[in-house]
Amino acid sequence: MSFDPATLRYDANGLIPAVAQDHATGEVLMVAWMNADAVARTLDTGRVTYWSRSRQSFWAKGETSGHVQTLIEMRVDCDRDCLLLLVDQTGPACHTNRRSCFYTAIREGAEVEIMQPL
Amino acid sequence: MSFDPATLRYDANGLIPAVAQDHATGEVLMVAWMNADAVARTLDTGRVTYWSRSRQSFWAKGETSGHVQTLIEMRVDCDRDCLLLLVDQTGPACHTNRRSCFYTAIREGAEVEIMQPL
Repeated sequence: MSFDPATLRYDANGLIPAVAQDHATGEVLMVAWMNADAVARTLDTGRVTYWSRSRQSFWAKGETSGHVQTLIEMRVDCDRDCLLLLVDQTGPACHTNRRSCFYTAIREGAEVEIMQPL
Repeated sequence: MSFDPATLRYDANGLIPAVAQDHATGEVLMVAWMNADAVARTLDTGRVTYWSRSRQSFWAKGETSGHVQTLIEMRVDCDRDCLLLLVDQTGPACHTNRRSCFYTAIREGAEVEIMQPL
């Protein structure tokens, strides 16, 4: 079946969450949002492009930082309302310069930083 | 720092997305939503509990199916608006009886089913 980004289920703002996972290590790097055009751009270019909710504009990941995400494979979930992106991540995915945005763990009721900036 | 679920950033509906990942294999199993009470219940019980948007009620994963998710570790992202749950998943995570909800890949512009029901 040919894939049409319009067939995904977007929220009231026209957005769908996308989980970026390192294709080689399985590490979950970040979660961001896409609209239908960002999904199409990502598939067309092979470079992951999100929609920035704060800036209300396309966000070609790494465009300014150089920390690009090259798309290895896009997957759709059963409800068609979430995406999984297997990516090749250059450098840190997080704006804090950490490999992953999920660097804070909850352990015994407390927040623990488990990852240092690169 | 002691963790308070109220310090997370919830959307207009009071919800935060949570990515469930197999703690042993790294496989991303599903994405669902939690409110602050579901976050607290998950941490208190060690059993992953979501908020069902369709039923508008707590959804203790596996309560009826037996396909429970035992929490190994909860992580918070840099923006505090997304959770990563490392879990021990009993059986399939997906209601279609597949291990993961992300069983559809986009390959060469087409949807391809890459995972069979268990």
